[in-house]
Amino acid sequence: MAWTLDSVLDRLTTELDSVMQFWLQHSHDKQFGGFLHCLSREGKVFDTVKYGWMVCRQVWMYAKLYNSLERYHTAEVLEAAKAGIEFILQHVKVSGEQRCYFMVSREGNPVKLQRKPFTECFYTMALAELARATGTNHYMEAAEKMLGQLIQWIMVDSSSLGSGYLTRGTSELGRPMMLLNVLQEVCGNDTTKRKQYEKEISWSIQKIQTHLQRDKKWICENVSDDASELPGSGGRLMTPGHAIEAGWMLLTEAQQQDLPDLKKIAIEDFIMTPLNAGWDKEHGGIFYFLDVDGHDPTQLEWNMKLWWVHNETLISLLMVYQVTRDDAIWKRFCEVLDYTLKHFPDPQHGEWYGYLTREGHINQKFKGGPFKGCYHVPRCLLMCHTMLETLLKK
Amino acid sequence: MAWTLDSVLDRLTTELDSVMQFWLQHSHDKQFGGFLHCLSREGKVFDTVKYGWMVCRQVWMYAKLYNSLERYHTAEVLEAAKAGIEFILQHVKVSGEQRCYFMVSREGNPVKLQRKPFTECFYTMALAELARATGTNHYMEAAEKMLGQLIQWIMVDSSSLGSGYLTRGTSELGRPMMLLNVLQEVCGNDTTKRKQYEKEISWSIQKIQTHLQRDKKWICENVSDDASELPGSGGRLMTPGHAIEAGWMLLTEAQQQDLPDLKKIAIEDFIMTPLNAGWDKEHGGIFYFLDVDGHDPTQLEWNMKLWWVHNETLISLLMVYQVTRDDAIWKRFCEVLDYTLKHFPDPQHGEWYGYLTREGHINQKFKGGPFKGCYHVPRCLLMCHTMLETLLKK
Repeated sequence: MAWTLDSVLDRLTTELDSVMQFWLQHSHDKQFGGFLHCLSREGKVFDTVKYGWMVCRQVWMYAKLYNSLERYHTAEVLEAAKAGIEFILQHVKVSGEQRCYFMVSREGNPVKLQRKPFTECFYTMALAELARATGTNHYMEAAEKMLGQLIQWIMVDSSSLGSGYLTRGTSELGRPMMLLNVLQEVCGNDTTKRKQYEKEISWSIQKIQTHLQRDKKWICENVSDDASELPGSGGRLMTPGHAIEAGWMLLTEAQQQDLPDLKKIAIEDFIMTPLNAGWDKEHGGIFYFLDVDGHDPTQLEWNMKLWWVHNETLISLLMVYQVTRDDAIWKRFCEVLDYTLKHFPDPQHGEWYGYLTREGHINQKFKGGPFKGCYHVPRCLLMCHTMLETLLKK
Repeated sequence: MAWTLDSVLDRLTTELDSVMQFWLQHSHDKQFGGFLHCLSREGKVFDTVKYGWMVCRQVWMYAKLYNSLERYHTAEVLEAAKAGIEFILQHVKVSGEQRCYFMVSREGNPVKLQRKPFTECFYTMALAELARATGTNHYMEAAEKMLGQLIQWIMVDSSSLGSGYLTRGTSELGRPMMLLNVLQEVCGNDTTKRKQYEKEISWSIQKIQTHLQRDKKWICENVSDDASELPGSGGRLMTPGHAIEAGWMLLTEAQQQDLPDLKKIAIEDFIMTPLNAGWDKEHGGIFYFLDVDGHDPTQLEWNMKLWWVHNETLISLLMVYQVTRDDAIWKRFCEVLDYTLKHFPDPQHGEWYGYLTREGHINQKFKGGPFKGCYHVPRCLLMCHTMLETLLKK
């Protein structure tokens, strides 16, 4: 169909409400607090374990919606976010340490600690957004305390996290990308805070760009600390969804700081080139992993089509369109939107499927699990909603 | 086609030689020692990293073939195994500790250490088999020294391995299963050694059986230490290939020790029931993971068809046939053989593909990688070869 700004806004608004209805209805754990996010197609709990980062992401999402859209600025949304953060502070946060559990039981007992800093990233984002929703200063203080730890781990020394890898001096794209995202979320529109974290924002932007390899044709997921390609499959690994996600974060900074060179890099190298490389010309959709030399990636799921990759791409393309007003980009956005809406949403029970085969068939029917919660879908829908409203007002 | 014992023996002998030719020709690292086992469809190296367990498995396989079949009792095979073990002792074994690196660089520099004891299991098996091939006593001494450590980790306390899990008291099927396998390999036909490790063999047999849950209908991959089902997806996880693999190890013990009850459990509960549950009635082949309540497993690759699962099933079914002489079992063996031979071997370049989609299409073309080396295919072909020769002689 021929999409217009208006018709896209209408459709994405409907999707957002359907998706949020699913989480509001099925995921609140009224007995033990927090969210039960391992939910079947129909919204039934198939596992009561709570993944720390999923609980944090859901709090962030609720607080963001509360702060952004009038119809989500409700006591129900705010109370659910506050109940979520209380569970996090009591059970996900490791008492007396700047660390978070990756998994806890329904009751909040620790199950697993990861050697990665990502649960802590979402803990920080949840606190920062809820601080703005509630005006509660100690949430922001707790967010910035963890942010200090994240800066130490990601910029200086991650050895206190532990690691099975014995060779040092490698950079994973997810780390500077998440640090930039957390910094953007903590700072918001606060210019004093942006000044305070200026050095860390700049470092993240530079570090992300070290992943641009092979004459700027490929964003490699792992590079050496001196910005060279690493040997073997690990060095050749490309994750189009990650590159494209980093792209809209870089583009946000380029616009905020008025950096035309960064704007060009974000659009061309981090968004359009990875999208072209990652698009499956045979079946449509974007691959999960690629090898820059065309070998089959060793990850068994390399050719699957994941929901979040398509969410990040929709955000990125709409942001590029907002910046460039290039009709070719709008056309591309509509193509990705068509694929996405055809394959992922479940009109019968709400929310989206997460995992499709290469051919676009549903590989797993559940709506929430260890790696999928109330986050990528509504974040995409909310961000697109905001951009479309801006575009329509102009 | 209608298979006979003779025609299966002929075909599997041809396969074994084609598979071994692939590794003998492409994988020997004459410059740095050990094996380059990340090999493309054509046998070209696509990554020079060496996974410790793969190098150990290849040494074990070479030594086993040298000890088992006259046409592999050659200087070339023995020298390659010895060169492999020298690389292992110098670079895979952690100096001064009873631990092995999971990954080393081509030159042998440490890359990664796992919080699992499996590289050490294959290190022990490689040394024990090569000790028999060469009559070198210090190989067996080194094997038994590591076996002592494995017994400590698996039977008593694994905390020195480290773990991200904070809840104790769970048993993973792979651990007692691998301990039993290592014990069988270290002891071989040595009755003194079997006597020496009697307690550990019994413990492993008992521990494996604690994974039999739900009125003996399901082998759960993870159970509590007191033999109860664990909550959630982790507790409901079933890996048909693991259950069936454990089945032939239990059946081996049942025959060796003349234990009719164990024989029945091995055949019915560990081999036939998981095979029936795991067989894909729509597309053929055996699923990788299942959820005992029929939820979609959260593992993205759950419905893929993996080579090793089919290797273990062929071993198990032929062993059951050898024990029972039941024609229905032979028919089942032939069905699995037909699926396997139709989908996995690559007649053009040798060796087998490892990873198929649910529908049986090749998902990754490489012949060797982080989890696939010179092991499951030739082990299956050699074991079936030996059983078929015995059956034909009777």
